Amino acid sequence: MIIVMKENATSDSVEKIVKAIESAGLKTHLSKGEEVTIIGVIGDKSRLDTCAIEADPSVSKIVPITESYKLANKKLHPEPTIVKVKNTLIGPDTMTIMSGPCAVETEEQLMCIAKAVKKAGATILRGGAYKPRTSPYSFQGLEEEGLKYMKTASEETGLATICEVTSAHAVESAVKYVSMLQVGARNMQNFELLKEVGKTGLPVLLKRGLSATIDEWLNAAEYIMASGNPNVALCERGIRTYETSTRNTLDLSAVCVLKERTHLPVIVDPSHATGVRSYVEPLAKAAVACGADGLMIEVHNDPAHALSDGPQSLNFEQFDSVMEHIRPYIELAGRTL
Amino acid sequence: MIIVMKENATSDSVEKIVKAIESAGLKTHLSKGEEVTIIGVIGDKSRLDTCAIEADPSVSKIVPITESYKLANKKLHPEPTIVKVKNTLIGPDTMTIMSGPCAVETEEQLMCIAKAVKKAGATILRGGAYKPRTSPYSFQGLEEEGLKYMKTASEETGLATICEVTSAHAVESAVKYVSMLQVGARNMQNFELLKEVGKTGLPVLLKRGLSATIDEWLNAAEYIMASGNPNVALCERGIRTYETSTRNTLDLSAVCVLKERTHLPVIVDPSHATGVRSYVEPLAKAAVACGADGLMIEVHNDPAHALSDGPQSLNFEQFDSVMEHIRPYIELAGRTL
Amino acid sequence: MIIVMKENATSDSVEKIVKAIESAGLKTHLSKGEEVTIIGVIGDKSRLDTCAIEADPSVSKIVPITESYKLANKKLHPEPTIVKVKNTLIGPDTMTIMSGPCAVETEEQLMCIAKAVKKAGATILRGGAYKPRTSPYSFQGLEEEGLKYMKTASEETGLATICEVTSAHAVESAVKYVSMLQVGARNMQNFELLKEVGKTGLPVLLKRGLSATIDEWLNAAEYIMASGNPNVALCERGIRTYETSTRNTLDLSAVCVLKERTHLPVIVDPSHATGVRSYVEPLAKAAVACGADGLMIEVHNDPAHALSDGPQSLNFEQFDSVMEHIRPYIELAGRTL
Amino acid sequence: MIIVMKENATSDSVEKIVKAIESAGLKTHLSKGEEVTIIGVIGDKSRLDTCAIEADPSVSKIVPITESYKLANKKLHPEPTIVKVKNTLIGPDTMTIMSGPCAVETEEQLMCIAKAVKKAGATILRGGAYKPRTSPYSFQGLEEEGLKYMKTASEETGLATICEVTSAHAVESAVKYVSMLQVGARNMQNFELLKEVGKTGLPVLLKRGLSATIDEWLNAAEYIMASGNPNVALCERGIRTYETSTRNTLDLSAVCVLKERTHLPVIVDPSHATGVRSYVEPLAKAAVACGADGLMIEVHNDPAHALSDGPQSLNFEQFDSVMEHIRPYIELAGRTL
Repeated sequence: MIIVMKENATSDSVEKIVKAIESAGLKTHLSKGEEVTIIGVIGDKSRLDTCAIEADPSVSKIVPITESYKLANKKLHPEPTIVKVKNTLIGPDTMTIMSGPCAVETEEQLMCIAKAVKKAGATILRGGAYKPRTSPYSFQGLEEEGLKYMKTASEETGLATICEVTSAHAVESAVKYVSMLQVGARNMQNFELLKEVGKTGLPVLLKRGLSATIDEWLNAAEYIMASGNPNVALCERGIRTYETSTRNTLDLSAVCVLKERTHLPVIVDPSHATGVRSYVEPLAKAAVACGADGLMIEVHNDPAHALSDGPQSLNFEQFDSVMEHIRPYIELAGRTL
Repeated sequence: MIIVMKENATSDSVEKIVKAIESAGLKTHLSKGEEVTIIGVIGDKSRLDTCAIEADPSVSKIVPITESYKLANKKLHPEPTIVKVKNTLIGPDTMTIMSGPCAVETEEQLMCIAKAVKKAGATILRGGAYKPRTSPYSFQGLEEEGLKYMKTASEETGLATICEVTSAHAVESAVKYVSMLQVGARNMQNFELLKEVGKTGLPVLLKRGLSATIDEWLNAAEYIMASGNPNVALCERGIRTYETSTRNTLDLSAVCVLKERTHLPVIVDPSHATGVRSYVEPLAKAAVACGADGLMIEVHNDPAHALSDGPQSLNFEQFDSVMEHIRPYIELAGRTL
Repeated sequence: MIIVMKENATSDSVEKIVKAIESAGLKTHLSKGEEVTIIGVIGDKSRLDTCAIEADPSVSKIVPITESYKLANKKLHPEPTIVKVKNTLIGPDTMTIMSGPCAVETEEQLMCIAKAVKKAGATILRGGAYKPRTSPYSFQGLEEEGLKYMKTASEETGLATICEVTSAHAVESAVKYVSMLQVGARNMQNFELLKEVGKTGLPVLLKRGLSATIDEWLNAAEYIMASGNPNVALCERGIRTYETSTRNTLDLSAVCVLKERTHLPVIVDPSHATGVRSYVEPLAKAAVACGADGLMIEVHNDPAHALSDGPQSLNFEQFDSVMEHIRPYIELAGRTL
Repeated sequence: MIIVMKENATSDSVEKIVKAIESAGLKTHLSKGEEVTIIGVIGDKSRLDTCAIEADPSVSKIVPITESYKLANKKLHPEPTIVKVKNTLIGPDTMTIMSGPCAVETEEQLMCIAKAVKKAGATILRGGAYKPRTSPYSFQGLEEEGLKYMKTASEETGLATICEVTSAHAVESAVKYVSMLQVGARNMQNFELLKEVGKTGLPVLLKRGLSATIDEWLNAAEYIMASGNPNVALCERGIRTYETSTRNTLDLSAVCVLKERTHLPVIVDPSHATGVRSYVEPLAKAAVACGADGLMIEVHNDPAHALSDGPQSLNFEQFDSVMEHIRPYIELAGRTL
């Protein structure tokens, strides 16, 4: 951490800050420039009340040098983490495909989709039972009933399952039925929910917030890990920008940044990122090419009659085709399905 | 709602969509252009599965014409809502000042601040007991202990109180101690929390999400109102943009937009929006000038030693000065403190 | 300037960087932390090839401490600049109103508008003769013919005039006819144009780019000033964000930031920022309240038949009303029209 | 085009709008809903003054249905355009590699880089002679001298060349020396420059503006094409978002969107988009995988001493390695270098 003093800061002000830091058991290094004085801070910053320092009228700004997340940090854990979900591994040697409907509708529908996505190569069945919807008047999900269908589908097909949770109450139900919990974009900084999923020990897929920085995202993962749960995978699903041609802007450079900063595996969701069916295949290929560890793709038996998020869902034939076309890219990346 | 067909859509495709709409009990109006056909839909759209339509390969796009929020909509409730918080009214004739520390630290601190802000003209004491912090290692608030101090401060000074809630559990505690609940920016689309605060019936201050559109914000208010609680005020606190000179970008045009679309009162928080002490006064004046119904301003007895958000807090002398300087703007706006 | 080394940087790498800096005639200050080493650089950075340093594989990042703009910098010129445009002054004691049509259409139209805006209190007549339009098929302006009408209108009314220039060629024509040149948002980083308007010596209004940071904006002003022209005023006209309720998001906090960083006067344009007629008055008041030195407001004799930007233009009656309503805010701000 | 009337619009207001449209020779279609009336407009909209309509107080909004660009539109020109640059083709069967230094520094440097990039597989040599730099005090390029070196390098190696132009004056010089002109991000809406490069007939690479929508970008291409020059390629180089881990956010979904909307070829520039050397390879692979027709990659003989944009440049060894690693992706995409 570096403290940049204002140009008119007196030696007394500098001295006062230095004393405050050293009294907290840290060391300082002074650098007096022609225009400004800079104080380098050495030691464990969590002992320090940085707000008090930033609030000092003689301080211009504080520049953090090291990251605040530790358990998620690659520097402290250089080997890539492999997250085990039932019989599937998410990690550097595999390409994990999570597929299924946006929302679980009926047992028959889910079973039918589960069989189709398994046949095409998916190993994790996704399906929403608690749907966070912008309007209170939109379909909100089947809740526990939907979770039960997920369990049945898993038992019949052997697929692992993943379901979004939106409250402590939903977490309590979901742990009884599914293999992996998902925290959605809108809840990425719902810190109470992060602590709850952390306590379960179940693998967690943490989606990036609509306008979350990568740093905030890794700190959100840190909440889960600090609650005792190291089984976290991250999911890039598009960020909010001014561009309206796609629902969100898929940030594939985030995959590259994450691979440098964290050991956690990274999934890419081209379906939600774009909201457009025909963009799923090219962006799935691109995600594989730039280092993603898995893909989340929406599949529906009848997209034209889905209860939620129709325009981006693939039907079975389309999903088969996408899987066939991305297979050589997966091989080229040195991974197996 | 308007359905724009693709340019190559056949009459059969158009006919199919029209039938689907009419079978749901709605009416249609066809408009055949030289290039595209447009289907106007007349009636209650909540009966309609718009996803199924949008997913139809012959459909180009759906353009919504009317808003999905109803209880929050000015069209259906033209008179401005006045929210009563203890003895204070938030509405068109008043300028409600909510002030206090970002985080409650000790009973003495809170009491000292409460007296100071009351003297300067505030009628609602703010103070965080549950703090949503980016890093799990930052100070997270005193929780119920902090709420108790709020109650004591309210009893001694007569001020109403407001406190952020971050979980169903926090709501349960807060209703016992404070006059108004706050839903923070990070939880604006935590729909389960919105339903919880809706059920309490207590007045709610709903902060705008970091990158929420005004439409999403009003739909979030609708969640609270649809749960039976009409006592909602909205708080503009800056949105996330590319500009880094201020912590967020205060969107004062949102005040103008809200005044056209909703009857709910609007509060502006220049402290969080900018993160810079010296910008609080000019932007508070601007907020009053463009129609805000209240201001939320952070005040601390000793900003240089605050546990959270120091740089933007005002000390007592600064707050007195801000209040003195904005008073003529409040009068000019035809409001009373 | 601070150079942050990577965590694994060797003493040799550090030594190499230090030598490179010192051989350029600057001084360094080493600060060795537990994790990283930081090199403070003291002296005139323009002597230094910072790219070469940033490209060094042992360097993590460079943190600038001082601004790259000098002539526009308040630190080196603490007194506010007063820009004289014909008989009008733009500065700390006045509120300069620039009004007129988006595009000049006919001589009669312009004369009629000129008289109306003068009567209401404007001192500078605006009007576009070179219109930068998104589509090549939209109306592009009357060019030199329009400039001539501006000159006539100025002679008849005594108003100063301002016109946007979009090329070296347009600058050459404009200097013959108008009192002030405008560089539009789309050309804020058209550096060749900035140099051209710099050479004229005429007062220049520099609009903020659609997604320009305040730092980039001040550096653009520096281009004009470094070409020998100190008569620059800045115009905030909304930035591009994800919000679609208004055409752009008016960033009034930029006024506060500019007042701290530069001595140049600041104008606010609520018409272009919002694109909505009814938001012009409340945001004009807000701009005055937070410290703007002037307003640019679109006025048209017949907004419903304007050739460009109709929805945001005010008619004469509306403009009279806005001027009447903002007058007490101007007085409160201690300024005169 | 659809005109949505306000809810309280009278039949007279509707009638007035309808007459205005029909008197311009277009047809209308009325659609009266329970809440609003919608007017569909059929015919050539360029005959219509849409601003006048939008400004009518009874009109709520206008929704465009068809695009304003025609020459760039895939609907009117379904076959992909192949742009010929000297002996190189940019189009659906090739992967065109444009490489070289950010800025031309000396003849020796440029020749050395030209030979290296040719050997590795590039066919177009890039190099800046006119550099648009944020600060007026940064290195601005060698101008005509640099162009001469480009010509010599082209003659010695047989490579085609591309150079950014920033003014009419630069265009005039560049046409004498280089094979392709580049319009940079900051000048994407410098419409006068677009017209100038349009008049030359030389192939043009049009970079996306820092915050340009895809629609604005295609309209900028339309300016060039409408000036008589059909040889336009588009270059995605990252957009401005709130994320600061990369210099810009590379928008690869833009490649997919462009492939649906236009017949013009699309180049991706991962060097400028990220500003980070190690992200160039994975994002180059991703660009190839999602359908790009070419790549622009910065290469420098000595990135640690480049005069501009060092941190993102690859040295020869790194560029060889990137080319070797992307080659199988190019083959998989069915393209040849």
